Amino acid sequence: MFSKILIANRGEIAVRIIRACREMGIQTVAVYSEADKEALHTQMADEAICIGPAKAADSYLNVQAVLSAAIITKSEAIHPGFGFLSENSQFASMCEECNLVFIGPKSETIDAMGNKINARKLMIEANVPVIPGSEGVISSVKEALEIAETIGYPVMLKAAAGGGGKGIRKVRSAEELPQHFSSAQQEAKAAFGNDDMYIEKIIYPARHIEVQVLGDKSGNVVHLGERDCSLQRNNQKVMEESPSVVISEEKRASLGNAAVRAAKAVAYENAGTIEFLMDEHGDFFFMEMNTRIQVEHPVTEMVTGVDLVKKQIEIASGEPLNILQEEIQFSGHAIECRINAENPAFHFAPSPGKIQNLLLPSGGMGLRVDSAMYSGYSIPPYYDSMIAKVIVHGHTRFDALMKMQRALGELVTDGVVTNAEFQMDLISHPAVLAGDYDTAFLQETFLPNWVPEEE
Amino acid sequence: MFSKILIANRGEIAVRIIRACREMGIQTVAVYSEADKEALHTQMADEAICIGPAKAADSYLNVQAVLSAAIITKSEAIHPGFGFLSENSQFASMCEECNLVFIGPKSETIDAMGNKINARKLMIEANVPVIPGSEGVISSVKEALEIAETIGYPVMLKAAAGGGGKGIRKVRSAEELPQHFSSAQQEAKAAFGNDDMYIEKIIYPARHIEVQVLGDKSGNVVHLGERDCSLQRNNQKVMEESPSVVISEEKRASLGNAAVRAAKAVAYENAGTIEFLMDEHGDFFFMEMNTRIQVEHPVTEMVTGVDLVKKQIEIASGEPLNILQEEIQFSGHAIECRINAENPAFHFAPSPGKIQNLLLPSGGMGLRVDSAMYSGYSIPPYYDSMIAKVIVHGHTRFDALMKMQRALGELVTDGVVTNAEFQMDLISHPAVLAGDYDTAFLQETFLPNWVPEEE
Repeated sequence: MFSKILIANRGEIAVRIIRACREMGIQTVAVYSEADKEALHTQMADEAICIGPAKAADSYLNVQAVLSAAIITKSEAIHPGFGFLSENSQFASMCEECNLVFIGPKSETIDAMGNKINARKLMIEANVPVIPGSEGVISSVKEALEIAETIGYPVMLKAAAGGGGKGIRKVRSAEELPQHFSSAQQEAKAAFGNDDMYIEKIIYPARHIEVQVLGDKSGNVVHLGERDCSLQRNNQKVMEESPSVVISEEKRASLGNAAVRAAKAVAYENAGTIEFLMDEHGDFFFMEMNTRIQVEHPVTEMVTGVDLVKKQIEIASGEPLNILQEEIQFSGHAIECRINAENPAFHFAPSPGKIQNLLLPSGGMGLRVDSAMYSGYSIPPYYDSMIAKVIVHGHTRFDALMKMQRALGELVTDGVVTNAEFQMDLISHPAVLAGDYDTAFLQETFLPNWVPEEE
Repeated sequence: MFSKILIANRGEIAVRIIRACREMGIQTVAVYSEADKEALHTQMADEAICIGPAKAADSYLNVQAVLSAAIITKSEAIHPGFGFLSENSQFASMCEECNLVFIGPKSETIDAMGNKINARKLMIEANVPVIPGSEGVISSVKEALEIAETIGYPVMLKAAAGGGGKGIRKVRSAEELPQHFSSAQQEAKAAFGNDDMYIEKIIYPARHIEVQVLGDKSGNVVHLGERDCSLQRNNQKVMEESPSVVISEEKRASLGNAAVRAAKAVAYENAGTIEFLMDEHGDFFFMEMNTRIQVEHPVTEMVTGVDLVKKQIEIASGEPLNILQEEIQFSGHAIECRINAENPAFHFAPSPGKIQNLLLPSGGMGLRVDSAMYSGYSIPPYYDSMIAKVIVHGHTRFDALMKMQRALGELVTDGVVTNAEFQMDLISHPAVLAGDYDTAFLQETFLPNWVPEEE
């Protein structure tokens, strides 16, 4: 096992990883930007190294600075968390060159899944259903028009190297296609240096269902059930739960098997997530694979009892997966609400600032809050606005919802506006209580009718 | 189900009960003393009523004030928590007279178990092993000397109405007995208005093993396994764990059965605990029954998944126990450390005061902190010094110990000295790591060798 790990991240996930390391007897090194000198991850780690100015590009994304910090501190491995360098295959291979273990899949795997056209091909070969669309790179507008005609409008034009919503266009008709095609291509070229495009049918209404997998260096792969992440705003997940109310036992097994096939197709090592869209008939289609730990991983931890971050570290250190698929038990129901420093009543504008008085929900059974906040902490304006994750576990979905209402009601972040009240209203909505929602629900049904409480 | 419950307690247990009520959709009424105006339970409850001055005798023990508060607020039930009025049978019967449900056993049951001589008789009838000793009230010094001779010195002289260490004497020889007998009798008379005495053999070395039970109004009783509470200082539990490392599966079943017989013998309703002492041969002896929720109940909740406070409320409202003995699964290992505002380096003197900056351990898997503290809260000097309970759950005992070390290491209570460092040293001691300790260990082995860290 490693004796020292560097955490190339910040915020709650950095703190989450430090905690896991501590419970495993592993020393931790934090890296921090100048804006994060007082951050909890900086204070909690056994060592902390400043790697540059506030802007992520100059610090958390600065590969040289991160690697240097790891070498100077004699760290043996780097945990990238999510975001930042976590899906940067070049960073992963540079770690290997520096004799540092990258806690994640092999760089080739990141590449294989990072190129969406390639990932689609691999999935088709592995007999995993993909969203109907083009088979490979679209060479011309003419070809795009032909394929769109076959699968039917509206369609989605996507960049092979896509991510962060760049190089993506919804196309409603043949007339629109040529213009969207060239503008998306230009955007992709500028953002990724790669203008390969492909087309997919738009699955709507849909549920966003993803499956957590773990693979070790010996080719063992297990799945840990699904998460339903259909409640989204601008493609950002807002609330996640497991199990999904729309998945039967039979469907769970078939989804799980598809996810395991997908992971095995790329000899997947470490924790990963296969994202699917499920249509109104219950048919599911591979969307993409996230080759890292995800924000919503605690939901799976609560229903399976498996600590995914510890498993990541064990696998990266060469330990074999010590759980068999049939040993993974699913128990009860878990829900996560993301708490963001943002003002839902004002277009969800980010609301950084100083937390004068913090009270995190705590105590009682089945409640977990992953956060990097403390009373007096100033949330810097430079990074993601997610400041805490409230996760609950109950015997039933109803128990979990009641517990989440209790928990959100307890949260105090004096000095900083958050989306906690918005989340409270969301999980209290009859459709959410009934589990009857899809990927469009939050934006098209809930938000237009949501009235913020008067202060 | 009740629509409103009054909580006749303060501190973390009051907050714990409020949280359970909230998750069940039940309105809550807090009562508070003048010293607890800013307390968390006062702030969190839906309603809060001041019931008197700081001294417990004038507020939390003031039966009239508590009952009036319940009647005024139209509460339907009263949860007494632990301590204060929780084992006061007169209070329980006055609740009934006021048409208020006392969330606990019937007043007769409290009486039956509160008189230790009576409890011993009931247990003997129920075929539950009791500590060797006198069969009933000892009528004279002569009788005491005869019994002590039979069971062998040292023996313990105890008051039938005993509690809080009053009316108890350890007797090492026949010469000492007459004097101790009369002084204990006088003390008992003064404290309880009852000078009935009995004798018990001293079980030493011993483990303090207790069994949690739940009984409903229809006579159904289940046990929820044991807690090992052998780490004690001055008869106060310091750290508790479940399962006990000295209990085999076979022993657990036999202990559990004895506890169920004990509870059935008094038609026990609600949550209760049967305390046993276990000698070096693994033989166990009934010590007493606590007819209330206990401080260390979360340890059982973590290994069984059963919310004991919710079960108390359900049972009191007349719902039948909806779990069968064979459905209760024990999973993993749980440990609780009590965090007290006291200075272990200075004779454990209470250390009330203002918490300038509070950081409770949180996040990650299997951690729970039950507390009523917040940043800026002033701990009043009038009550028990226990200010938080840190509870962890791991797959194995070792996992749980590592998690507890992590959790205690995270706790910050700037401005108030606590026993957290003492607890950290205790759980890191080789004997505790090995599970090799008895009721004398903390005081006779650990403490004399403990060196507080220099500030």
